[in-house]
Amino acid sequence: MRAVVLEGSNLSVRADHPSPVPRDDEVLVRVTRAGVCETDLQLIKGYMGFHGVLGHEFVGVAEAGPFKGRRVVGEINCSCGECPTCQAGRRSHCPNRTVLGILNHDGAFADYITVPQRNLHVVSDSIADDVAVFTEPVAAAFQIPDQVYIDRDMQVVVLGDGRLGNLCAQVLARMAKYVTVVGKHPEKLAILSDVATKLLKDVEPDHAADLVVDCTGSPTGLPTALSLVRPRGTIVLKTTVAGEQTMAWAPIVIDEVTIVGSRCGPFDRALTALEAGEIEVLPLISARYDLSRGVEAIDHARSKPALKVLIDVK
Amino acid sequence: MRAVVLEGSNLSVRADHPSPVPRDDEVLVRVTRAGVCETDLQLIKGYMGFHGVLGHEFVGVAEAGPFKGRRVVGEINCSCGECPTCQAGRRSHCPNRTVLGILNHDGAFADYITVPQRNLHVVSDSIADDVAVFTEPVAAAFQIPDQVYIDRDMQVVVLGDGRLGNLCAQVLARMAKYVTVVGKHPEKLAILSDVATKLLKDVEPDHAADLVVDCTGSPTGLPTALSLVRPRGTIVLKTTVAGEQTMAWAPIVIDEVTIVGSRCGPFDRALTALEAGEIEVLPLISARYDLSRGVEAIDHARSKPALKVLIDVK
Repeated sequence: MRAVVLEGSNLSVRADHPSPVPRDDEVLVRVTRAGVCETDLQLIKGYMGFHGVLGHEFVGVAEAGPFKGRRVVGEINCSCGECPTCQAGRRSHCPNRTVLGILNHDGAFADYITVPQRNLHVVSDSIADDVAVFTEPVAAAFQIPDQVYIDRDMQVVVLGDGRLGNLCAQVLARMAKYVTVVGKHPEKLAILSDVATKLLKDVEPDHAADLVVDCTGSPTGLPTALSLVRPRGTIVLKTTVAGEQTMAWAPIVIDEVTIVGSRCGPFDRALTALEAGEIEVLPLISARYDLSRGVEAIDHARSKPALKVLIDVK
Repeated sequence: MRAVVLEGSNLSVRADHPSPVPRDDEVLVRVTRAGVCETDLQLIKGYMGFHGVLGHEFVGVAEAGPFKGRRVVGEINCSCGECPTCQAGRRSHCPNRTVLGILNHDGAFADYITVPQRNLHVVSDSIADDVAVFTEPVAAAFQIPDQVYIDRDMQVVVLGDGRLGNLCAQVLARMAKYVTVVGKHPEKLAILSDVATKLLKDVEPDHAADLVVDCTGSPTGLPTALSLVRPRGTIVLKTTVAGEQTMAWAPIVIDEVTIVGSRCGPFDRALTALEAGEIEVLPLISARYDLSRGVEAIDHARSKPALKVLIDVK
């Protein structure tokens, strides 16, 4: 099959990559569309030491199992189900887990991917592939209200005008009246409706926000968030960056700030929101490439003006 | 009056330091006993750029006001009461605040200190000066259950066998069954009763604790805490260190850890606990020095085996 493969720092499209073979608990899924994520770009820089087929945002058709022939999306954490962490209900943190396209499991920039049956969610007919492919990042945005109580009157700042910042802002704007997205790119801020926007260069370190969500994907995100959050406020950290970062920690203690790491979220909630049209995703699509041009797709996603780059698998 | 004064990195006892003059909302307090805190040692290293009279843990006698002639302890944050932060009920985070012995307000290693009347708490006759002088750090320990829900069955690890680690462990051991203090000093761990103890060198990064409290006062505390906390667990950060620190942040996001900065706490709760004998503080006293030997007291506190060094003011 065709696949976008990362080996070391070398990325290439292979025409003859072996098709994955599903284990007993897995289903072969024929990918129809995939999305390039910031995490993919970090993996290429060496994050997690991943090698194999990239890609974890996808929609496809189940080739077997109870959902055979139906369109599906898949949660990315493949857990063992038996360890104390799984038994405690934290399956997405299973220490034995693999993660689609991120950790010891080939991903979705390919004709086929194998996914545990329990990770699959059927996609309603009314959700187009171009919309369904956003389920994973929309779920990640819905993880925030699962972790932090969102009050209607909260002052919320979302740092980052990229893909994830946009989706987090849309999710939070349904729950809080005062949401401001801070970014560097006027053209990306412009596609956000219903929320206030501000250029990073115009932002003062005013320690006024009740909640700051860091979606910058940059090591400067957390220090900026600390300059904007109020004492006893909360920072939700979505940014994962490779390597070590340097900053002063004392303000976390002095201002009694709470920092909440936030990763994957509820697919069911995301699918409901996408079906109801609560979250607009189509304006985020910057470009689409055929799978055979997967490396170009990723190069495009890396370019500053890009939001979501899709990969068509036909 | 006599006072221990920090100027730049120079620490000295002055015999003729001018007595502080209370403002309208302040009361002059004659200090009877004071305690040396890790923060004092950090201030000497340059933290906060403080200069003036050191000391923020104290008990004394009010020289005026409604508590005239009575023994008092004082909360350290002196707030304006009028800004939005104060009006929102977060007076200890007032951006206009001074902090006794830490920020623009002379401290308690002196014959006299001025304290806002509203910061004072009367000390019950049954609480000796040697016990009352621990009110501030015991209150800081009681801040933890004010910020984080403590479940009886939680696995709690307190990192650090120093003064604050000891007090936090005692407070948490009243609420949770499984509290382990991890430290480097067998002789400091030995004075802890009713909690498990472990030497740092024997600790494996097992990601098993529900709650880790960092009282190390060291830049290595937070990375160690991250290696011990379970996915979706909580780290309470008590350590303030000067300057910048370097570490990998990605695990905070990957493991969805919550980090809670924690500073000053409720004096009323601390005084109740001290009066009831819930918290043992006397075994923590390593040494006492007369105010005229304040520099020696601080040098002693800096030595590794010391726990709490008191300063007698007669």
